[in-house]
Amino acid sequence: MCYYNKLDRHAKKLSRLGHLNAICGWDQAAMMPNGGAQARSEAMAELAVISHELATADYLEDWFKQAEAEDLTPEQRVSLDALKRQWMMQNILPADLVEQQSLAGSQCEHAWRTQRKQNDWEGFKANLKPVVELARKEASIRAQATGLSRYDALLDIYEPGMTSAVLDRIFAEVKSWLPQLIQQVEAKQATEIVLPLSTPFVIEQQQALSLEAMKLLGFDFEHGRLDISTHPFCGGVPTDVRITTRYDESDFTSALMGVIHETGHARYEQGLPQQWRDLPVGEARSMGIHESQSLFCEMQLARSSLFSHLLSPMIQKAFNSTDASLSAENLRLINTRVKPGFIRVDADEVTYPAHVILRYEIERDLIEGKIEVDDIPTIWDQKMTQYLGISTQGNFTDGCMQDIHWTDGSFGYFPSYTLGAMYAAQFMATINQQMDVELLVGQGNLTPIFEWLQTHIWNKGSTLSTDKLVEQATGETLNPEYFKQHLMKRYLNN
Amino acid sequence: MCYYNKLDRHAKKLSRLGHLNAICGWDQAAMMPNGGAQARSEAMAELAVISHELATADYLEDWFKQAEAEDLTPEQRVSLDALKRQWMMQNILPADLVEQQSLAGSQCEHAWRTQRKQNDWEGFKANLKPVVELARKEASIRAQATGLSRYDALLDIYEPGMTSAVLDRIFAEVKSWLPQLIQQVEAKQATEIVLPLSTPFVIEQQQALSLEAMKLLGFDFEHGRLDISTHPFCGGVPTDVRITTRYDESDFTSALMGVIHETGHARYEQGLPQQWRDLPVGEARSMGIHESQSLFCEMQLARSSLFSHLLSPMIQKAFNSTDASLSAENLRLINTRVKPGFIRVDADEVTYPAHVILRYEIERDLIEGKIEVDDIPTIWDQKMTQYLGISTQGNFTDGCMQDIHWTDGSFGYFPSYTLGAMYAAQFMATINQQMDVELLVGQGNLTPIFEWLQTHIWNKGSTLSTDKLVEQATGETLNPEYFKQHLMKRYLNN
Ligand SMILES: [Zn+2]
Ligand SMILES: [Zn+2]
Repeated sequence: MCYYNKLDRHAKKLSRLGHLNAICGWDQAAMMPNGGAQARSEAMAELAVISHELATADYLEDWFKQAEAEDLTPEQRVSLDALKRQWMMQNILPADLVEQQSLAGSQCEHAWRTQRKQNDWEGFKANLKPVVELARKEASIRAQATGLSRYDALLDIYEPGMTSAVLDRIFAEVKSWLPQLIQQVEAKQATEIVLPLSTPFVIEQQQALSLEAMKLLGFDFEHGRLDISTHPFCGGVPTDVRITTRYDESDFTSALMGVIHETGHARYEQGLPQQWRDLPVGEARSMGIHESQSLFCEMQLARSSLFSHLLSPMIQKAFNSTDASLSAENLRLINTRVKPGFIRVDADEVTYPAHVILRYEIERDLIEGKIEVDDIPTIWDQKMTQYLGISTQGNFTDGCMQDIHWTDGSFGYFPSYTLGAMYAAQFMATINQQMDVELLVGQGNLTPIFEWLQTHIWNKGSTLSTDKLVEQATGETLNPEYFKQHLMKRYLNN
Repeated sequence: MCYYNKLDRHAKKLSRLGHLNAICGWDQAAMMPNGGAQARSEAMAELAVISHELATADYLEDWFKQAEAEDLTPEQRVSLDALKRQWMMQNILPADLVEQQSLAGSQCEHAWRTQRKQNDWEGFKANLKPVVELARKEASIRAQATGLSRYDALLDIYEPGMTSAVLDRIFAEVKSWLPQLIQQVEAKQATEIVLPLSTPFVIEQQQALSLEAMKLLGFDFEHGRLDISTHPFCGGVPTDVRITTRYDESDFTSALMGVIHETGHARYEQGLPQQWRDLPVGEARSMGIHESQSLFCEMQLARSSLFSHLLSPMIQKAFNSTDASLSAENLRLINTRVKPGFIRVDADEVTYPAHVILRYEIERDLIEGKIEVDDIPTIWDQKMTQYLGISTQGNFTDGCMQDIHWTDGSFGYFPSYTLGAMYAAQFMATINQQMDVELLVGQGNLTPIFEWLQTHIWNKGSTLSTDKLVEQATGETLNPEYFKQHLMKRYLNN
């Protein structure tokens, strides 16, 4: 077991450097004064070089060969597989391609921050083209190494085991009912009267409310904290999870729902198996499963009618107000309002999948070489019109230039969002069969629900494939029917 | 210049890893929840290993040989000297000694935390003996390499260029007038009426006051911040200085004076020469010079009569109170109260040197082998009685077990505190000759005073020896007469 142990030790070393990177990255976003930026990025770049050297060290190939011949327990073999996958992912690309991608990505992303505001598609296009070219090269190399198609080889980075064949089938199904559902919900909600919030909401009170909500959802404050950053995220390490939010005095719901979302991510991290700490097999299974945990908290729980009854008194107490707009029923109306819009990150639960499917279809064809960068705005406009009934013609800012993902070449990530929503619905359907969720939520006793997630999801880390994980937890692999049923029930039957 | 550049690059790499260590160390003390401790220390230990490997790499000896033969500018030669000193300091000790010291130090310090509370000298002694033995070994090795005496070789770590011959002379002089001065001040202050503070002081208000004081003292908030930790310190990096304090609701002065003290350290760091960033030659000159900057702010400025007139309205505003205890005159009385006591960290400006001289004399003789660990309590008691007129017989908790320094083998550090006080007095005497300090402080215009420090101290980094630095700034090397004059004037003439 000598070489297995060496690899184990090596991975832990890398993970510990990742720990320092995570904390300094969190600090950069949440604590660091502006003047510290330059030296900080130099310091973090130095760490990245050291980590990269370690991750791509020559001797590792031999170590893996030796370790695979060793007498290992089944558990060790699973860990070794995860180690090998991580190593291959980090060694598959030639150094000069990685460097070109980093440069092209930085340049595209940096310019995008200005170009987006100026609706400058021509300028952006010029930077995006090399990024796409390099991503296609990356996809080819990964495809060759894995036997997957080019797009699937990128998808595999974020969703190991997922393929566009499966996504095509699932998303086709969603497309068969989603546009109609959106119209029905809009018609139904047209007669609803939603009371506007009486602003402002003091930041300190919102902060106290956020902490209350985190407590309710079982966030472990011995192993994490909440702070403020411009772009909310869940960072840190499993033993010390750092989530952030940003407060808007005119609307407490965005920060509150954001915190609840990040708390879902955080509980997954906090619940990962301790015996595999600092090893790939102990990490979160995939981006989609990660998102399923945040959306479980935000969508399945927090935006439900029953949960509004838990939140309403907390909110009234936090703001010391009994205004009618803060009633459970009005909160439910606010939290389930559906309206097709241009912006993905502002989208509601029902229209969100349309944004994702649109992006998936474009990036898939882009990587497979079926369309070119020049084609994007027209296709974007067509699909927006088809799925959501709104046109983005000439509006690049709120159209194909709205997301950061493509600017640095992160193709293959978008499907995770909707996969997460679907997994979350499927998990909740199973939990509903095993316990009286309505009763528990009504009592404010979420423990049994989270215990189910702890046992079936968090504790598994990456020891199972996503399909196996979901099958063992719910009795079947991903089935989008649960998501459909969830939306139908919440948005049409209520 | 190839090898000089290599060494320059190598040092910057080490410094950048030090940056990550500093931020994660700050986070550990100021932000991290308890549950993150284990993984954090593992991660930081990993970084320490990597840094140590880099700092002691085999190839460096050759690089230095090659670099010294290269055609360098005078400035580069100064930087190279500083690089070489740093390299030698990090490579002089055999790895097994460093490891033994680390183990013995950790064990002694860990047990001390309990033993001190229990007044358990016998238990502590058993752990301190190996620490002293190892420190003597370290001192011998350093003495052989530097040609210094054994104690001086340890002193040289913190105060390059300082020797016990100089300290003996200076401290003998201080001892010739200090005990009598203390008695005179006590007699004078016996008739003073100091109004007690009317507590409590709300933490948030103390925090706001701290930030106000930092602003007054020119702390650059673009390159630093203030937070809370159990043990206040000045950490971070020059471009992002992190100072901490802790608040006591029953007494705002401890946090306020603490913050002012740390602001002095911080301004030095923030003012270090940018062209030498990440290089040893760009670092603070010595511990004594560092302390001179904190004591300049705290002792020379903040505890002065005139400064009380600046602070008083700020304090009254912060706590929204015009209580007579917050008058400028009463604050001055509080801030200059002298009373011999057992505890160094609680000591006032006048009695503090006695605590330092006592420790210096003991650790000097301990390292030189003139006394043994068993002798410490008796000598401690004798010297406390002689210098401060109070006995610590049988009281180890408040006697020779009060400090953390010796537990992990940091012999040679204590003199820096009083050297700092002396340098601060000498700097202020010079500044007084060059500008009307009373007028400036009276106007609350501290800029010209800090500009002097920026030009003569901060901006020099480690480009000059301490003697040269002080001589160029003040016209002479360390002269304790200024400190004496300062104490006489403040504590007897007022
Ligand atoms: Zn998320
Ligand atoms: Zn200090």
